[in-house]
Amino acid sequence: MQDIILAHNEAKGENFLKRIIGKKPLFACTLGTTETAKISGISAAGANPEITDFTPPADIELLLLGKCKCIKGVPVTPDGIPTPALITMSALKLASIPALPVNAGLRILPHVPYLELGGKPGRDIRTGKAVQNVLEVLQRAKLAGQILSQTVDYLVIGESIPGGTTTALGVLLAMGVNAGGKVSSSMPGNPHTLKMRTVEEGLKKLRIKPGELKEKPLDAVSCVGDPMMPAFAGLVLGAAERIPVLMAGGTQMSAVLAVVSAVNRAVLGNVAIGTTRWIISDKTSDLRGIVSQIADVPILAANLNFSASQYAGLQAYEAGVVKEGVGVGGSTIAAIAKTKGKITAEVMLKEVEANYMQLVSTKPSQ
Amino acid sequence: MQDIILAHNEAKGENFLKRIIGKKPLFACTLGTTETAKISGISAAGANPEITDFTPPADIELLLLGKCKCIKGVPVTPDGIPTPALITMSALKLASIPALPVNAGLRILPHVPYLELGGKPGRDIRTGKAVQNVLEVLQRAKLAGQILSQTVDYLVIGESIPGGTTTALGVLLAMGVNAGGKVSSSMPGNPHTLKMRTVEEGLKKLRIKPGELKEKPLDAVSCVGDPMMPAFAGLVLGAAERIPVLMAGGTQMSAVLAVVSAVNRAVLGNVAIGTTRWIISDKTSDLRGIVSQIADVPILAANLNFSASQYAGLQAYEAGVVKEGVGVGGSTIAAIAKTKGKITAEVMLKEVEANYMQLVSTKPSQ
Repeated sequence: MQDIILAHNEAKGENFLKRIIGKKPLFACTLGTTETAKISGISAAGANPEITDFTPPADIELLLLGKCKCIKGVPVTPDGIPTPALITMSALKLASIPALPVNAGLRILPHVPYLELGGKPGRDIRTGKAVQNVLEVLQRAKLAGQILSQTVDYLVIGESIPGGTTTALGVLLAMGVNAGGKVSSSMPGNPHTLKMRTVEEGLKKLRIKPGELKEKPLDAVSCVGDPMMPAFAGLVLGAAERIPVLMAGGTQMSAVLAVVSAVNRAVLGNVAIGTTRWIISDKTSDLRGIVSQIADVPILAANLNFSASQYAGLQAYEAGVVKEGVGVGGSTIAAIAKTKGKITAEVMLKEVEANYMQLVSTKPSQ
Repeated sequence: MQDIILAHNEAKGENFLKRIIGKKPLFACTLGTTETAKISGISAAGANPEITDFTPPADIELLLLGKCKCIKGVPVTPDGIPTPALITMSALKLASIPALPVNAGLRILPHVPYLELGGKPGRDIRTGKAVQNVLEVLQRAKLAGQILSQTVDYLVIGESIPGGTTTALGVLLAMGVNAGGKVSSSMPGNPHTLKMRTVEEGLKKLRIKPGELKEKPLDAVSCVGDPMMPAFAGLVLGAAERIPVLMAGGTQMSAVLAVVSAVNRAVLGNVAIGTTRWIISDKTSDLRGIVSQIADVPILAANLNFSASQYAGLQAYEAGVVKEGVGVGGSTIAAIAKTKGKITAEVMLKEVEANYMQLVSTKPSQ
């Protein structure tokens, strides 16, 4: 498994990996939106802030149908860099891993079947009332996790929610985790100050001091989180009672981990975070530094490397654009593990380039 | 497998059974409503016609939570006989079989996670415009069937839709299957004349002659079917490409089979119907007689027998009340097959009585 990096808590990571090699996974993708993404400068998960509502449904259509239906083309950043769903799609396709969409609170619904949990789109966290019916969604998601845990060997759970690192910062701070300046960004220039100001405004609105909701994870999500969180955390809580769960994402996973850990630490033995090399080598964020404050779960990272790509839109990933999302790292790890290493980072790049050529552009860079 | 009856196409049935013994199933339950159920005298799937909207969501809550949330108690017939979901619940519990709710077109949504396919509640078939967006739901369901087929060894698909035998008659007649006087009923006195009159009114509204839609299954469903059908047929079409599918139900299954068969006969080698002894020994209906006109798929029947029950509400099943629904027969067959015969009809009755005592009544009959 040369292309899976043991990035944190190595021994536990190796043990987790042993449990999933050659086994049958399901990739569940939690999808939601938050008005927080529409604050200027917060998110690059869409060509402009208003269009971020379409990014999650378009991402999941890409995974299931091989093309988007709710938008033309594929989601891109303001600079035209394509969605990480393109990479996830490649991993799932290469390793024949099924994907299940999970509606955690979408404004625009995808043209594919999805698991419904009763969640609503998230509000701007500056209101201090970011997410509705957190407990109800968490409970339904837990039940869904229990059901899914009886069908496959392990679960990989990803997310697509623009603005998600800002809401992650919100929940982490509300729960007393020192995450200031540590969450990642889909932009190379990480707007830490803007994120912090946004979170502080939400907390102040409810007169909540950082750390005050340490034992109240659902309140933290209600106040300054996003709808992806209760859905994702519930799936982990339900599935990890029985099977391994790979939480696929970047620093957003630490916020979900904080919720899971505060609700039921007993499941953490079945939990690992799966991310990308782009996240663990990112100098503007610190996933390990956040996770180590919460629980000693391992972090695995897919050793994806696009520096040899003939396409500028993929090379951009090496410059720190996008980095993670739609479970890129976790789905790649699952593809490598399922095929016992037959799929490598090199095989992945070839497949990603083929899909890029078909869906984005046929023009190689200079 | 003494308690699984090979009821039709015995050799194929035995072969199907061999393929599922000891294997891991998922029970998917398609849920919908149709205004057709509110025609007086059509359905006994609820204490009165108006309450039939609550029966499917209450049924699935019972399966997943062990109790209903959207109604008090459990669904009953006008005579107080409890829903067949009580039996399905017992089978799934005994054999640890997971259940996945599928919203095929509900008016009242259950308080559990469910798979959403974009279906709408069905209209009264006398309008001749019974079901909306049939193609879209069928396509989404097919994709869902393909996804699920990559998670488990085989699929058991059931239904809960009051009024479903009348809509089944509608689709069968529209497609040229001689089903008059052959569909079953949840009532001991099967109202064949009323059902036929209802169907004829719907067909006449669109000036469609019986048999005219033989090659147009989706039009038949749109005109005089119900929303369960495209969801159920799509799941079969997607899953049976790869794994065995047990269609769990009574004569409604023949209408779904007619749709599946007209869309893609190639999948039928992976298909069997799973029902109850109450259906195959019913003198007011003829499942074999309908199915043999459509395709040579096998019929298996769970040899459930409640004549020795101490509860009048369960003995009533022997008098021809309810007979099938919520996948009673198929889920029981799956429970027997999964445990390689450790679960018998006798074990089932004990478990059903225990659940009956807890959920319906503690009072044995005289």
